[in-house]
Amino acid sequence: MRGSGERSATYGTGRLEAFSDGVIAVAITLLVLDLKVPQPDDGGSLAGQLARMWPNILAYIISFLAIGIMWLNHHAALRRLRAVDHAVLVVNLLLLLCIVTLPFSTSLFSTYLTDPDGGHLAAVVYAGSFLVTSLMFLALQWLIIVRRRHLLHEPLAAASQRTVLLRGVIAAPVYLLAALLGLVTPYLTLAVCILLGLFYLLPLRRRGS
Amino acid sequence: MRGSGERSATYGTGRLEAFSDGVIAVAITLLVLDLKVPQPDDGGSLAGQLARMWPNILAYIISFLAIGIMWLNHHAALRRLRAVDHAVLVVNLLLLLCIVTLPFSTSLFSTYLTDPDGGHLAAVVYAGSFLVTSLMFLALQWLIIVRRRHLLHEPLAAASQRTVLLRGVIAAPVYLLAALLGLVTPYLTLAVCILLGLFYLLPLRRRGS
Amino acid sequence: MRGSGERSATYGTGRLEAFSDGVIAVAITLLVLDLKVPQPDDGGSLAGQLARMWPNILAYIISFLAIGIMWLNHHAALRRLRAVDHAVLVVNLLLLLCIVTLPFSTSLFSTYLTDPDGGHLAAVVYAGSFLVTSLMFLALQWLIIVRRRHLLHEPLAAASQRTVLLRGVIAAPVYLLAALLGLVTPYLTLAVCILLGLFYLLPLRRRGS
Amino acid sequence: MRGSGERSATYGTGRLEAFSDGVIAVAITLLVLDLKVPQPDDGGSLAGQLARMWPNILAYIISFLAIGIMWLNHHAALRRLRAVDHAVLVVNLLLLLCIVTLPFSTSLFSTYLTDPDGGHLAAVVYAGSFLVTSLMFLALQWLIIVRRRHLLHEPLAAASQRTVLLRGVIAAPVYLLAALLGLVTPYLTLAVCILLGLFYLLPLRRRGS
Repeated sequence: MRGSGERSATYGTGRLEAFSDGVIAVAITLLVLDLKVPQPDDGGSLAGQLARMWPNILAYIISFLAIGIMWLNHHAALRRLRAVDHAVLVVNLLLLLCIVTLPFSTSLFSTYLTDPDGGHLAAVVYAGSFLVTSLMFLALQWLIIVRRRHLLHEPLAAASQRTVLLRGVIAAPVYLLAALLGLVTPYLTLAVCILLGLFYLLPLRRRGS
Repeated sequence: MRGSGERSATYGTGRLEAFSDGVIAVAITLLVLDLKVPQPDDGGSLAGQLARMWPNILAYIISFLAIGIMWLNHHAALRRLRAVDHAVLVVNLLLLLCIVTLPFSTSLFSTYLTDPDGGHLAAVVYAGSFLVTSLMFLALQWLIIVRRRHLLHEPLAAASQRTVLLRGVIAAPVYLLAALLGLVTPYLTLAVCILLGLFYLLPLRRRGS
Repeated sequence: MRGSGERSATYGTGRLEAFSDGVIAVAITLLVLDLKVPQPDDGGSLAGQLARMWPNILAYIISFLAIGIMWLNHHAALRRLRAVDHAVLVVNLLLLLCIVTLPFSTSLFSTYLTDPDGGHLAAVVYAGSFLVTSLMFLALQWLIIVRRRHLLHEPLAAASQRTVLLRGVIAAPVYLLAALLGLVTPYLTLAVCILLGLFYLLPLRRRGS
Repeated sequence: MRGSGERSATYGTGRLEAFSDGVIAVAITLLVLDLKVPQPDDGGSLAGQLARMWPNILAYIISFLAIGIMWLNHHAALRRLRAVDHAVLVVNLLLLLCIVTLPFSTSLFSTYLTDPDGGHLAAVVYAGSFLVTSLMFLALQWLIIVRRRHLLHEPLAAASQRTVLLRGVIAAPVYLLAALLGLVTPYLTLAVCILLGLFYLLPLRRRGS
């Protein structure tokens, strides 16, 4: 990595990982700011006020797991690389830009979930923000394993490339479905996002290289 | 770690530690957001307003130390590992999910500590959130030293396993007690949590491997 | 780096990079706090309220990319160094001080962009904060490659020094122009900042050492 | 560090540095939350509102530099160590607890600086929080170089110990003076803190090992 020829256009992966870890760690932690402490003078008992926070609590858990899983996948994607170039840095930055907006769309969703007027739109924005993020992640994956094969520790065979990309593609149509179902009712969006989270938490025996 | 066989299912511990450190560092720092500056137009002298913040200050200190001690233990638990697999990553993510909620339950507790109505419930939620977190930490410990022995630098003897797990088990019944005492008065919850914090700060001569 | 003679006055770059990465990661993520969820009782439909947030969304994207690009450049500047001394640490700290204010000036700009009274001043403050930051970055670059040549992995030839500094100088006059155009209309400031962001995202074939 | 005997009671410094860097990076960045964007409906011109923010801007700069300098010194203190034990971890945690409160006391000071009633107390709390933090830092320094000599890369001679501790002691009486002067007028507290910041930024030729 310190060879003078290579150094002119590529960088080691260490600080990219550190910066990405930092941004994702802050974004995932900011989700808790949507859990606002009810104030004593808001009226009603504390038990009732906490019970009415269920959309916030559920949205917090779903988004935390979804961002956490993105971190895992990001982790797995970058460790294939022995070096990064300008294009990888830029696409990674665009991915982080998407991830950092997720606390906003999560808070929007939890605020409007039970609102008969805004609920549909909030659900579409919520699932849509995850859809865009997963597409950007797919772009990063494709860039790394197809277009930057020479930067990998070990280039992947065409079959493995397809497997990795296909696995990354799964999330996009699910989030698209979740967004469309939000037009029917935001609760279906919620259900699909919960199922997707559970699916990823299951032990994946197939989780090959 | 870079052997092709092993690489298919396990990861190095570096980025997991970095990400966990980041999340815990942000969560512990967000505790300060519960110390809200009294505004000049709130009425009363500044001295009186600051004096009325004692529940916030006390809860800040207790939670800071409790999360800090969790970080120390997390640190000690992960350094036994030479690699992590999907299960460790997922359980660690669930542990982080619990830790990130602690600024919320801390703020809830400090807001309602002196409230005759909400105080009991707030104390139960506060101690309960630490109880759940400590159980999740125990699950991670058990997973690491019992179920993932092959990922350790040095597998532990059965006796050492018991010692480590027993030490981790201590916190759970104390937090359960603190939660139950909250039904009597939130001040007992506070007292138990202070004592637990002091206990952990003491030099532990027994602190073996 | 561990030689006793050198250790007295210089430091390794590891923790400086880690601290800078942390500060920049938090600052870039705090930008999302300017995307405030409209409340159901604010009046108007959610669609209308989200549509009125376009200045916030646009300012979020521009500032995110601008700070991200600064991180890339910071990354590139520090990796030339094999050690840092007090002066580098201090100038780097002043640079971080500037970067951390950018979420404030971003939020100020998005709040006043469509305001006929405050818009001009907010645009000048916005572009001005980036101008000062880019000048401080230039000072760090100059310090590193000209004044601290003995701390570099490989000292740069005079021609390379000029190239690196010239590239860093580009941003300053553009931000000065953006600030001056803000006196005409804040929308021109916005346009210049968008163009500058796009320029940096383009693949730079010339991006030599 | 991986020797089985040593591993039982001490830890490497890597994660302690990473966690401390993370906490300090978040705390220093949270200072910007005290720069609140004036709202268009607050009344008065934007220029006038920004001008009235001078205490916030000044307090932001002073506290940013003070925390940044603490980070530099923390950095220098920890790199003497080849390993840490329970006591170092605990005292370091208490130091971080102090540092994380500084955004609160900074915000308190900037809010009340121009307030004839609360200004004195706010100045005392502000300088007092830095006083306590610098005393805790001194305790960490003393613990490291005097009581944990066996954990150092190279034990310091008694004369060097005295030099290092004396240098660390300087800050405490200055902050005590700043606190006492706050009883006269908060502006003197401000002046002393500015001078102390400038003093630390000067190139220190004497800055030996």
